[in-house]
Amino acid sequence: MVAANEFNTPTPLLDRVTSPDDLKRFSDAELAALARELRRETINTVSRTGGHLGSSLGVVELTVAIHAVFDTPRDKLIWDVGHQCYPHKILTGRRERMHTLRQEGGLSGFTKRAESVYDPFGAAHSSTSISAGLGFAVARDLGADVGDVVCVVGDGAMSAGMAYEAMNNAGAAGKRMIVILNDNDMSIAPPVGALSTYLTGLCARQPMRDFKDLVKQATAQLPQPFREGAERARHLAKGLMSGYTMFDHLGFCYLGPVDGHDVKDLVRLLRTLRANADGPVLLHAVTKKGAGFRPAETAQCKYHGVSKFDPVTGKLAPSKPAPPSYTSVFGNALVAEGERDERIVAITAAMPAGTGVDRFAKAFPERSFDVGIAEQHAVTFAAGLAASGMRPFCAIYSTFLQRGYDQVVHDVALQGLPVRFAIDRAGLVGADGPTHAGAFDIGYLANLPGFTVMAAADEAELVDMVTTAARHDAGPIAFRYPRGSGTGVRLPKRGEPLALGKGRIVREGRTVALLSFGARLGQCLIAAERLDQRGLSTTVADARFAKPLDVALLRDLVAEHDVLVTIEEGASGGFGALVLQTLAEENLLDGRTALRTMTLPDRFIQQASPEAMYEEAGLNARHIVCKVLSAIQGLQGADAARDVKTLSVL
Amino acid sequence: MVAANEFNTPTPLLDRVTSPDDLKRFSDAELAALARELRRETINTVSRTGGHLGSSLGVVELTVAIHAVFDTPRDKLIWDVGHQCYPHKILTGRRERMHTLRQEGGLSGFTKRAESVYDPFGAAHSSTSISAGLGFAVARDLGADVGDVVCVVGDGAMSAGMAYEAMNNAGAAGKRMIVILNDNDMSIAPPVGALSTYLTGLCARQPMRDFKDLVKQATAQLPQPFREGAERARHLAKGLMSGYTMFDHLGFCYLGPVDGHDVKDLVRLLRTLRANADGPVLLHAVTKKGAGFRPAETAQCKYHGVSKFDPVTGKLAPSKPAPPSYTSVFGNALVAEGERDERIVAITAAMPAGTGVDRFAKAFPERSFDVGIAEQHAVTFAAGLAASGMRPFCAIYSTFLQRGYDQVVHDVALQGLPVRFAIDRAGLVGADGPTHAGAFDIGYLANLPGFTVMAAADEAELVDMVTTAARHDAGPIAFRYPRGSGTGVRLPKRGEPLALGKGRIVREGRTVALLSFGARLGQCLIAAERLDQRGLSTTVADARFAKPLDVALLRDLVAEHDVLVTIEEGASGGFGALVLQTLAEENLLDGRTALRTMTLPDRFIQQASPEAMYEEAGLNARHIVCKVLSAIQGLQGADAARDVKTLSVL
Repeated sequence: MVAANEFNTPTPLLDRVTSPDDLKRFSDAELAALARELRRETINTVSRTGGHLGSSLGVVELTVAIHAVFDTPRDKLIWDVGHQCYPHKILTGRRERMHTLRQEGGLSGFTKRAESVYDPFGAAHSSTSISAGLGFAVARDLGADVGDVVCVVGDGAMSAGMAYEAMNNAGAAGKRMIVILNDNDMSIAPPVGALSTYLTGLCARQPMRDFKDLVKQATAQLPQPFREGAERARHLAKGLMSGYTMFDHLGFCYLGPVDGHDVKDLVRLLRTLRANADGPVLLHAVTKKGAGFRPAETAQCKYHGVSKFDPVTGKLAPSKPAPPSYTSVFGNALVAEGERDERIVAITAAMPAGTGVDRFAKAFPERSFDVGIAEQHAVTFAAGLAASGMRPFCAIYSTFLQRGYDQVVHDVALQGLPVRFAIDRAGLVGADGPTHAGAFDIGYLANLPGFTVMAAADEAELVDMVTTAARHDAGPIAFRYPRGSGTGVRLPKRGEPLALGKGRIVREGRTVALLSFGARLGQCLIAAERLDQRGLSTTVADARFAKPLDVALLRDLVAEHDVLVTIEEGASGGFGALVLQTLAEENLLDGRTALRTMTLPDRFIQQASPEAMYEEAGLNARHIVCKVLSAIQGLQGADAARDVKTLSVL
Repeated sequence: MVAANEFNTPTPLLDRVTSPDDLKRFSDAELAALARELRRETINTVSRTGGHLGSSLGVVELTVAIHAVFDTPRDKLIWDVGHQCYPHKILTGRRERMHTLRQEGGLSGFTKRAESVYDPFGAAHSSTSISAGLGFAVARDLGADVGDVVCVVGDGAMSAGMAYEAMNNAGAAGKRMIVILNDNDMSIAPPVGALSTYLTGLCARQPMRDFKDLVKQATAQLPQPFREGAERARHLAKGLMSGYTMFDHLGFCYLGPVDGHDVKDLVRLLRTLRANADGPVLLHAVTKKGAGFRPAETAQCKYHGVSKFDPVTGKLAPSKPAPPSYTSVFGNALVAEGERDERIVAITAAMPAGTGVDRFAKAFPERSFDVGIAEQHAVTFAAGLAASGMRPFCAIYSTFLQRGYDQVVHDVALQGLPVRFAIDRAGLVGADGPTHAGAFDIGYLANLPGFTVMAAADEAELVDMVTTAARHDAGPIAFRYPRGSGTGVRLPKRGEPLALGKGRIVREGRTVALLSFGARLGQCLIAAERLDQRGLSTTVADARFAKPLDVALLRDLVAEHDVLVTIEEGASGGFGALVLQTLAEENLLDGRTALRTMTLPDRFIQQASPEAMYEEAGLNARHIVCKVLSAIQGLQGADAARDVKTLSVL
């Protein structure tokens, strides 16, 4: 445990580390001391920047041990999810930039290839490391300049099918690679699923293997070449009787459990593996999330990702007063619907608090399901519930719903099943950066036959969309809303269902029309004021639906304005694209109205505040004004003879 | 084995079956006899229609036993993938329509909710059944009118992460449900991965459990309520020592292996399970793909999906002479590239023959990887290879790439890694119907920053695209091409790289421009002839790239024609949408050129011949002609005063 008076003590060992090479010169005792310094440094850093504290503290000793034993960057160290990489960044030449973590122009909160050669494979979504690691191992055996491959995977990440697919392949391929299962019995929320119980069982069998024991286990199992085919089958059949683990069944040599906080034992064990491994090895290390920092140990969910805090007391910096978050508004609205209708059930994939489903779970524990990091299953499980007459809300962030895309297409859309998708974190999300942006869902959902796709302009509309979705049994329906605080509008006492496929005029003008899909509506209203001040009378409309589109509204907007600009918090091929395709089909691209679609640009936007990211993306009020003005110039150029009432303002 | 002289024998028992209820009146011996009749009927049916023969023959006895014991449709029987459902369809009121299988207006080749109440959850993509089944089981326990849940899953489907996610959740939920593992040691191709070896090991342990043994096993394990938490952990820990299987570790009660072709034993065992199960049970049944029909037993890959054949000899109907398939052209081109560059590697997800990767595997076995049904892993494994400097081709059908979408976004696009995606089965695919249509990939790929997206207009262009992709190290690149035969054009001796983002003019005209992306080019040329005959001089261009778009070409087409129509074999939000968004941004939607985008319509197209499906979709030459004519009428209506040279032709 780091004592309060330690936080300003010097870091003599850490000061000597400019790259992992320096660790090779340390004695085992010095490595243990270095880990203590690294823990303090990590806490100090995150206290100033905020970030993923708990998971980083859990792997301090593992980080030191791996870098002490392996020859990175030639050996490939792949951190699954990557949010536990802060100690790794400190040791790999990025210590001086840690104060920029998760900030504009600063270090990423995850591993990132573009940032360092010590990050051979970036991550941020979970459970990818074994697949990527097998890629490196196979490439090595085909002649690429790659050394060893070490993947560090949390137990939460092991619930995802992707990790299983990778183990199934890596186990059969028999390539030398080391997977360290970082078992802290937590993902972001407490773990769920049979695997979690199983891992607890593995630990209960023999609470912690000591080093001598493990070396015996390692030397007994490792040097034998992995067997293939029938012989291997007999070997496994024998294994069935003699206590082999699930990981052995999948072709890995299982070692453990070991204490993931004992640097000396870890170093000795990794040296043994490095010397002897000749196939896939799974090392089961037991760690504690938030280890060594009492506030983080005792409130693991709260300290998974934190804002700034006091490194001595752990007291979190007070958050500024703000309107309720979209997430909490959704959570409350779902509870309200759940009270009216007992067929409503909620599904989350390891994000009960992040999605607001925790509120529903508290009110209706038997109707709430956290499936763990398993989005594919989440979607089809919801489809099964819908096929049984239930009314499932499947609450998954936009970026993670990509994991269940085939299930959305094949199990939900094709069968026309009324699964309700509550899509949080739509658009740009701030400090988590491009890996967590909700950029593509408008297109990948609205192009599916029979889908209804909505976006909330503010939190009051979100409440109505929850009600609309609850009552929509005609097919799948999705509604998206951004990360963070709402706009502060007054919330309705209870939601009212919206008219399907109908937008609304928020502000009436005569010359310019801004058609917003989602939460850029506020920026549209600011832009409209400015355009009005320039003499361009501006209408602002809230589309509400990308599908079905409000064709009558489109027709009116085009008929009555010289310029129509669509705005959305998503990539090309989404709302604006569908508007243009519809206008083309309706023969409304007649050149009398200049048209523009404003979307996220065709590049990934790096982390910053959401406001700064939208500035970079070109989707703020001033960009809307510029877009309108350039469209008017285009009109002018296109047809100088035409009576365009806007020309005088330019 | 069905003898040659049996094929025209009567089917007295089957004739008495109009619904599964009728099976309840049969003795066990009659059920066994019924199974023999059902096998003959299945062979006869498929000999006339073609279809998935082998997998259906493998489950004849299981089908009879399940329907004899369970109370469908209240009990939910879910066939994973669904291609083994022909015997099930015959027993559930669809016998008279079996001759329409996989044909226009006929029965689907898969289970389908819209077709029968006996198909509670449709399928066609693999590994969804346990998730859906858990949905039904949970809904039942919340009060929905659902009885038992029985899922039948092949061993091949068990390699998919989704099945593991579902087991991990079902095992922990402890709901009563029965999963029958139909272990025929085959998916479409021979199985891969550690799990397959493990299943072989389970069978080797005790080749086949007899009925008495199993009842003892079942009664010993089943009646105890499933334990939770710490007690369960101790229970599992004990289990580790006493030969529990991987399925037990995941919370299932494992029973087996049993002979999946012994109707009497299956019936008795299922009755025992029905009487006693009070949690998730996995019954491991060993079957033989193609069982009872020697040609199908001995050539399992060939008879997985067959064309028409002689039911006595098994001789397949000769296929009409046709140009080489796109698949084989791709396979050969990949081999040619592989010969030039040893960094080229190929990845397939259980489809070596279907994708043509088998040719590469034969030439370069050590550089070819079949990962099994595991698309998520396939994509990120390829990304790992690319990060190591290899040049991976990841060959996955359009519809199955949906399974790896997050990996395409997060692991490939975000990191800008040069993975080459060879996307077969783009567009409509014929008899497999809407579940296998490649409808959405243009949009879901072209909207990703940094992606290059191509579509082949014919098989010669495909060869060039393989070469283009092989040499493209600047980022991810995809090329799509349809199912079936090419157009018969002469193939180049070796591929030449295409200029990035450049289309080509195929035919020059003055009034109408048709801009094709992909294999509708042939229909465009036919349409152009007809338009020319009507006095509408027509240009046809082959876009080749949806991204980057050929903006110069777009500019010229708009400047020089009165009408521009885009055509693609994909949904809205794809190529045409990007063309319109680009034209808007370039201020080219000036009303002087009428614009239309032709895409797949906003509904799922049911199975028929590909030609008939495109007719239904409205993407054949005659529809292109109509679209052009209606666009011209629109122009006329929009601006009667303008000098439109096309008006005279209407």
